[in-house]
Amino acid sequence: MLDDITKQVAESDGEYALDRKDVAKVLYAVDCDDRDALIELMEPLHAADIADLLEQINAFDRMRLVKLYGQEFDGEILSELDDAIREELIEILHPQVLAEAVRELETDDVVDLVEDLDEPQQEAILDALEDSDRAAVEQSLTFPEFSAGRLMQREVVMAPDHWNVGEAIDFLRAQEHLPEQFYHVVLVDPRLRPVGNVTLGRLMSSRREVLLTSIAEETFQTIPVMQEEGEVAYAFNQYHLISAPVVDENDRLVGVITIDDAMAVLDEENEEDILRLAGVDGESRLSDRVIDTTKRRFPWLGVNLITSVLASLVIAQFEEAISQLVALAVLMPIVASMGGNAGTQSLTVAVRALATKDLTGANLWRVVRREVLVGLVNGIAFAVIMGVVGVIWFGSPALGGVIAAAMVINLVVAGLAGIAIPVVLEKAGVDPALASGAFVTTVTDVVGFFAFLGLAVLVLL
Amino acid sequence: MLDDITKQVAESDGEYALDRKDVAKVLYAVDCDDRDALIELMEPLHAADIADLLEQINAFDRMRLVKLYGQEFDGEILSELDDAIREELIEILHPQVLAEAVRELETDDVVDLVEDLDEPQQEAILDALEDSDRAAVEQSLTFPEFSAGRLMQREVVMAPDHWNVGEAIDFLRAQEHLPEQFYHVVLVDPRLRPVGNVTLGRLMSSRREVLLTSIAEETFQTIPVMQEEGEVAYAFNQYHLISAPVVDENDRLVGVITIDDAMAVLDEENEEDILRLAGVDGESRLSDRVIDTTKRRFPWLGVNLITSVLASLVIAQFEEAISQLVALAVLMPIVASMGGNAGTQSLTVAVRALATKDLTGANLWRVVRREVLVGLVNGIAFAVIMGVVGVIWFGSPALGGVIAAAMVINLVVAGLAGIAIPVVLEKAGVDPALASGAFVTTVTDVVGFFAFLGLAVLVLL
Repeated sequence: MLDDITKQVAESDGEYALDRKDVAKVLYAVDCDDRDALIELMEPLHAADIADLLEQINAFDRMRLVKLYGQEFDGEILSELDDAIREELIEILHPQVLAEAVRELETDDVVDLVEDLDEPQQEAILDALEDSDRAAVEQSLTFPEFSAGRLMQREVVMAPDHWNVGEAIDFLRAQEHLPEQFYHVVLVDPRLRPVGNVTLGRLMSSRREVLLTSIAEETFQTIPVMQEEGEVAYAFNQYHLISAPVVDENDRLVGVITIDDAMAVLDEENEEDILRLAGVDGESRLSDRVIDTTKRRFPWLGVNLITSVLASLVIAQFEEAISQLVALAVLMPIVASMGGNAGTQSLTVAVRALATKDLTGANLWRVVRREVLVGLVNGIAFAVIMGVVGVIWFGSPALGGVIAAAMVINLVVAGLAGIAIPVVLEKAGVDPALASGAFVTTVTDVVGFFAFLGLAVLVLL
Repeated sequence: MLDDITKQVAESDGEYALDRKDVAKVLYAVDCDDRDALIELMEPLHAADIADLLEQINAFDRMRLVKLYGQEFDGEILSELDDAIREELIEILHPQVLAEAVRELETDDVVDLVEDLDEPQQEAILDALEDSDRAAVEQSLTFPEFSAGRLMQREVVMAPDHWNVGEAIDFLRAQEHLPEQFYHVVLVDPRLRPVGNVTLGRLMSSRREVLLTSIAEETFQTIPVMQEEGEVAYAFNQYHLISAPVVDENDRLVGVITIDDAMAVLDEENEEDILRLAGVDGESRLSDRVIDTTKRRFPWLGVNLITSVLASLVIAQFEEAISQLVALAVLMPIVASMGGNAGTQSLTVAVRALATKDLTGANLWRVVRREVLVGLVNGIAFAVIMGVVGVIWFGSPALGGVIAAAMVINLVVAGLAGIAIPVVLEKAGVDPALASGAFVTTVTDVVGFFAFLGLAVLVLL
C-alpha cells in the first residue's frame, strides 16, 4: 500500500515541489552519464529546487550527479542545502568548481555558508574569495553566531537627512554599483546615525523639492548589531518591516537587514520550536544519517525513561492494592494519559505565547487562572464520562467515583503545571520548548497514578 | 514564587515587548480618567504594540481604555488584534470612531478585518467605506478564504515589456498616486500577462536607454489567484521572493502579493501546526475566554480518552497475569510511554517534512527505512538499559528480558507508525498535524501493552 501512497504523495505535492517523475528523469540521465540531458533537465530549476532534489536522493546518486554536473554547479545551490549535505558536497566538489561557485555569492550568503563548516572546509572557501570579500566575510564572523551582525548586509544605500528628493534621485542615478536588492534609502544624521527610512516607491512618486524627512516612513526601527536573530525576526513580523538599519553601540549605521532574511530566521525558529516540543533536536534534518538521527533522539527518550521509571516507582507503592483489585491496573493509565495530554495542550500554548511575547507580566495571572479553570471544567466533564464508564465496565460506583475524582485532580494539576513550568524554565534561562514536556509529563504521570491509586486505597480497600 | 516570576518574565521580554510598568501606567491613566495622560503614553507605541496591550488586559479595563481613548483609536490597531478581541471592540466602539478607523486602512487590510466577522458587523464596516473601496473589498471577498485572491493588493505598478528604463522612470515620476509600498515594476505583454519583475533599485541604477527586459530579475514566479495561501507562503520562502504578481486563469495580471503578507501567513501556518500537533485548535488565542478554550480543547481530550480506553481493553485481557505478577502493572507503562515518545518524534519530523515538501515520493522509502532503523537502534539501547533495571529492581532476568524485547518491538513500531500514519492521512486529505498524534499514540499504547504483557504470559507464567 505504501507504494501506492508514494505516488499519490508525489502527485499531491502541488506545483512547486519536484515530482517523482522529474527526479526519475534526472537520475536516468545520471545513470546514462548523459551530461547534456542532465543540464537540460536542471536548467529550468531554481537553485532551491536543485538543492531539494540533491537532499532527496541517496548519497551515491548525489555524488554521481554532482560529478556529472561539474562546472554548472553554482554557489546558490550550495547555500540552499542542508548542512549535512552541504558538507558532504564540499568534500566531493572539484576545488575549482567550489571556488567558482563561492565567488558568485553575496558576502552575507558566504557567511551563512561557512559559519557551520569545520576549520579546513572554512579555509578552502575563504581562500577562494577575493581579498575584499574575504575581509568582509571575516569581519562578519567576528559577530556572535545568531546575532544581527551575522544576518546583515554591509552595503547600505544612505542619504544625509537634509537632502530633498531630487538630490537623492540624482545621487542614486549617478551610482556605479547599488546593492542587488534594496528597498529603502536610509536617512542619516552627520554622525552617521540612522534617523529614518524612505521607500524607493515614495521617493519615485514625490516631487524633487520635497524634503526626504517629510516622506520618511512612520514606522522606523533600528536593530542593535548584537541583537539575537530571533528578536530581529520578531521585530520584522511585529512591525511589518521590509528592511531595517543595523547600528553599533554608538548608534551608528553599520548595515541593513532585509525581510527575506528575517523571514528565513522566523521560519527556522518556528521549526526548531515544533521539533523541540516533540523532543527532537531542533537542528535535525530529514537528510541526516541514521546514526546521527539516533543520537539526536536518544537524549529525549532517556529523559522520558527516567520520567516513566519515576511513575513506576509511584505505582510500586500500591502493589498490594493492585493485587487485591486488578481493575486498578486496567484503569490507571487512563488518568495519567488524560493528564499528560491536557498538560501538553497547556504547555504548548504557554511556550508559544512566550515565544510570541503574548504572555507577559501583565497577563500571567489571568492566563494561569484560565488554564486552571479550563482544566477544572474539562476535568469535571471527563470525570462524569469516565465515572459512568467505570460503573458500567466494572459495576462499581465507588471505582467510578475514584477515577472521576482522580481525573479532576490531574487535569487541574495539568493546567497549572502546563503554564507554570514553561514560565519558570524561561525565567531560568532554559528554552521552554526544549524542556517543558519532560517536566509536565512527570508531574501528570506521578499525580495521575498517585491520585487514582491513593484514592482507591482510601475508598475501596 | 509565581509573583516573583511575573516580574522577571516582564523584564526578560527584551526591548520590543511592553513591560509590566508600561501597562500599569496606562491602566493608572484609565483609572484616573486622564485622557491626556493616556494619549501621551500611547502616542509612541506602534499599533501592533497597542493591540498586544489591549489583548493582555482584562475585558473591563479594555472597555474603559477604548472609551477614554475615543477618536484616537485607529484602524491599524483594529487590524492587529486577535479575532475575539476585535469582535468585542467593534461592539464597543462608537460607530463614528469605527467608521473613521476603517476608512484609514488599505483595502487588503479591510478584507482581512471583515472576513471573519458576523454579517451585521461586516455590514457596519462595509457601510463606513467609500463606494470605490467598498467595491474593491466586496470583490476580494468573492475569492475563497485563504486564497491568493484574498491576500493580494489590487494596485499594481506595471509597465509594457518593450519599455526602457527612461520611459519607466518618467512614467513613475508622472504618477499622482503610487501604492504606499511597492518593490517591483511588473513587466506585462500586450495581453496584460506578466513576463518579468524589475526591482526599483535596479531601475534606479540603470542607464535610461537600457531595456527593462534586460534588467528583469532572474527568479520570476507568478501566483494563480485561486492558489491556497499556504502554497503562496511556501513559494515566497522557497524562492526568496519579495513581491509576486497574481494572475487569473488566463494568466492576466490581477494583483500583487508582497513578502510581508506572505511572512504573516507562513507564521500563522507554523503556529497552527505547532498547536495542532499538541491537540490544540490552531485558531486558539491566549485572549479566548475560558468557555471557548474549554470547548476547543475538549475534542482532542475526548479522542485521547477513546485511545486510552482502547489501551485499557488490552490490559484487561491480561488481568489474570497481572494478579499473578503485580510487577507487570508496575513496569507496563514504561514500554507504552517510551513508544509514545518515539512515535511522537517520528511523526513530528514526518508532519514537518510533508509541510515543507521535503518528504516526497522520491525519498519516502528511504525515510521509512531510516525511521525504522532509528527505532531499532534506540530500541536496542533502551532494551539493554531497561533489561538491567528490570533485573536489578525485580531480580528476575526473565522479566528483564521481556521488557527489553517489548521495548525493541514498540520502538520499531513507533518509528514505522510515526512516518506511515502522517503520510496516509495526507494522502486521505486529512491534515496530518491534526490527527497523527491520536493514531500514533493508539498504536504505541496498544502494541506496548500487548507486547509486554503478551510476552510476559508466554515467558513468565
